Amino acid sequence: MTSRPSPSTDIAQAIEALRQILGKRITTSAAVREQHASQLTWLPTQMPNAVAFAESTEEVAEIVKICAAHATPMIAFGTGTAFEGHVNAPAGGISIDLSRMNRIIAVNAEDMDCVVQPGVTRQMLNSHLRHTGLFFPVDPGADASLGGMAATRASGTNAVRYGTMRDNVVALTAVLPNGGIVRTARRARKSSAGYDLTRLLVGSEGTLGIITELVLRLSPLPEAVAGGICPFPTVRSACDAVIAAIQSAIPVARIELLDEVTAGAVEAYSGLNLAKTPLLLLEFHGSPQSVAEQSERFGEIAEAFGGGPFAWSDKTEERAKLWQARHDAYWACLALRPGARPIPTDVCVPIARLADCVEETKREITELGLIAPLVGHVGDGNFHVQPMVDMSNPAEIDIVRGFIERMVERAIRMDGTCTGEHGVGQEKRKYLDLEHGPQTLAMMRSIKRAIDPNNLMNPGKLVDNSL
Amino acid sequence: MTSRPSPSTDIAQAIEALRQILGKRITTSAAVREQHASQLTWLPTQMPNAVAFAESTEEVAEIVKICAAHATPMIAFGTGTAFEGHVNAPAGGISIDLSRMNRIIAVNAEDMDCVVQPGVTRQMLNSHLRHTGLFFPVDPGADASLGGMAATRASGTNAVRYGTMRDNVVALTAVLPNGGIVRTARRARKSSAGYDLTRLLVGSEGTLGIITELVLRLSPLPEAVAGGICPFPTVRSACDAVIAAIQSAIPVARIELLDEVTAGAVEAYSGLNLAKTPLLLLEFHGSPQSVAEQSERFGEIAEAFGGGPFAWSDKTEERAKLWQARHDAYWACLALRPGARPIPTDVCVPIARLADCVEETKREITELGLIAPLVGHVGDGNFHVQPMVDMSNPAEIDIVRGFIERMVERAIRMDGTCTGEHGVGQEKRKYLDLEHGPQTLAMMRSIKRAIDPNNLMNPGKLVDNSL
Repeated sequence: MTSRPSPSTDIAQAIEALRQILGKRITTSAAVREQHASQLTWLPTQMPNAVAFAESTEEVAEIVKICAAHATPMIAFGTGTAFEGHVNAPAGGISIDLSRMNRIIAVNAEDMDCVVQPGVTRQMLNSHLRHTGLFFPVDPGADASLGGMAATRASGTNAVRYGTMRDNVVALTAVLPNGGIVRTARRARKSSAGYDLTRLLVGSEGTLGIITELVLRLSPLPEAVAGGICPFPTVRSACDAVIAAIQSAIPVARIELLDEVTAGAVEAYSGLNLAKTPLLLLEFHGSPQSVAEQSERFGEIAEAFGGGPFAWSDKTEERAKLWQARHDAYWACLALRPGARPIPTDVCVPIARLADCVEETKREITELGLIAPLVGHVGDGNFHVQPMVDMSNPAEIDIVRGFIERMVERAIRMDGTCTGEHGVGQEKRKYLDLEHGPQTLAMMRSIKRAIDPNNLMNPGKLVDNSL
Repeated sequence: MTSRPSPSTDIAQAIEALRQILGKRITTSAAVREQHASQLTWLPTQMPNAVAFAESTEEVAEIVKICAAHATPMIAFGTGTAFEGHVNAPAGGISIDLSRMNRIIAVNAEDMDCVVQPGVTRQMLNSHLRHTGLFFPVDPGADASLGGMAATRASGTNAVRYGTMRDNVVALTAVLPNGGIVRTARRARKSSAGYDLTRLLVGSEGTLGIITELVLRLSPLPEAVAGGICPFPTVRSACDAVIAAIQSAIPVARIELLDEVTAGAVEAYSGLNLAKTPLLLLEFHGSPQSVAEQSERFGEIAEAFGGGPFAWSDKTEERAKLWQARHDAYWACLALRPGARPIPTDVCVPIARLADCVEETKREITELGLIAPLVGHVGDGNFHVQPMVDMSNPAEIDIVRGFIERMVERAIRMDGTCTGEHGVGQEKRKYLDLEHGPQTLAMMRSIKRAIDPNNLMNPGKLVDNSL
């Protein structure tokens, strides 16, 4: 860690200097500061010293220069919906809130891309696109800001067909720790002109630069959508059906697993008439003929693996009813243990190991007596477990911590990753050495030092263990 | 540029030290050295001082450590098929030939990935995969090595559907300039666990590390393939049909433009009965029903833009006959001006600007009286021009240089890139400042300095203007 002379004095001076340019758009109100720190899981809430509301790329550059001059940490803030402590301020500093930078600058329908500010959320964008025949497919669940989604390499239910933020960001404008403004690429769909700075910033969690503008790839709205729900006797048979469907080149748009705990929770919560067995929920995009064909072919595959019947429809309303279980899952799971705190965590493995990883994880959940529903974006080998934790019981917290550690180690042992889509933040830093090894981690750190030599951008996150 | 004490002495010492570990697998034969330098275009052939044939990752690490200890440049070599001088050795040094590292280490059919050494070529891999129902889709034309394809972010005809090397590399093992061995990621299909070192190395042209192993994503072989050929009255109408097809969410697998010069050349060369007008060649992958449906829908779109008739087939032999024009294009164009040297170059623009960029470029070709056929991977906005140059005529060389410069500037002005897939190498370094601006280029250079502080890996390429 870099030495910083008396941070508090420095930070106070930075706040004073920022007030000169921002006026009322910088605040030290405790309520606002608290709202800008991580609050969603069991991580301590570590507030910034002030929150600055930026309104342009140039203004972000000014803010960054002032912070840099006063050795003051800077934490970019979108909607604060990340789970792993990404917006905490363990060394204090300035939260740079980008939510007011929420203009959709251009929609280039013929090029199938758009240019947006980082505070635009994915739902805002998709509402705006409604009449263009295009949509932005990445859907992590929360109505997150697109800048935050890029910064955390967000993903979600559509990724199996449309990719993650890695695949759907064409170019970024970002302010570097020295206040310089870079544009990582131009608007061409592909380029071989230099290092892929776009992909370097996507997933960098605000530690290399602050994203102030994005060029995003858009997809044509499918002419038809079919979707449905399919019960399976075991998690393994469901996973095997997923592998077979993907190997058969069925271009599934979404394929979600709900384990029997989640299915039971939804049944109790929503009164849906569900089998209390593992469920797959699927969605197909294409022409009316092709979605019908895809649905029928998946039904046959499910049957071959002991699953089914696959109830599907291409009518919007019926499809919504069949997918109801997925949308209710979060709230239904909260109701499994009222008062407990959900601690969502995720891992991702090569899909052939998915059934093993899920089964072993579920066995441990049972052995430990945890209430921990499991859902998965199984087409990518990615699944989430959400232990419901009694935060007044330190022994239980320890047990759950141990459980998550073993789940991550299991995924890594299976050539998987400690996080498929939630990111590293503070909580998963401890696994990076096991996942990547010391030389790869050293390479990441040398990049961090090259771009942010004073460790001022989101310190204590990702590859920085100093806080 | 870093200062290097008397390179020649250093290099001689490095060769001596390498001989100790490699024996006959290092050579200073002029013929071998020449074959390991760039020879495909008008760039001077700059030979390395020696060529080392490596057989394992550990051996590459040993070679790199010896070169580093003797301040000796290292140039990774696959098949030498890059166009922009990528394998030239402007400061001498050691060409590290990876062609003997050509083992397919694993095919994980259920995970739809494979692990290969860098010397495996794409055709070797696809032959090996023949009975698995899977294939590796990236097809740049040449039977290039997969390590070289990753290093140059190769692309080609299939990219519109299957993506480029950027999208199809899951993880890399690489030897860094300090001799350290990194593995950039694990085998999970997605991850949010740290900086995207995979994408940083893909397209880094051997300037940050030498790729010694790759995990590649495979795709299911389509159940059916349909393809065909469609004439258009003008390049613009062909481009408009491309945009409409892609916006209609027709999942075209390949969509190639041949301009009327190329079409005429093929007609003369192959005796195919072709219209001497711009042609689109298309391929569709899917189920038998869906490829028929896609072909019919494209035929309607073509007609709406004044093109057609669209002759297509889902029979392998007929399809091959229809696509013959594309396969003959290279040789047919050589025959346009016997004895002249083809100078292939490429740019890429947002697809809505493609017709403008192609038309303006073709207008200049006519005005200058050049013989310069044009073909394009038009679904991505990427096109190639290949002036046929009389290398004994310096005035003509100057004219063609000016033409290429203006073509690149035109593409960049249209928010495109100086190269969609050929890479930067030596020849396109001069455009990076115009394309990216000084701050972005400075960021790239700071990464280069952080990873390769002594500028020993492929010096004089990409962001290094010192040679």
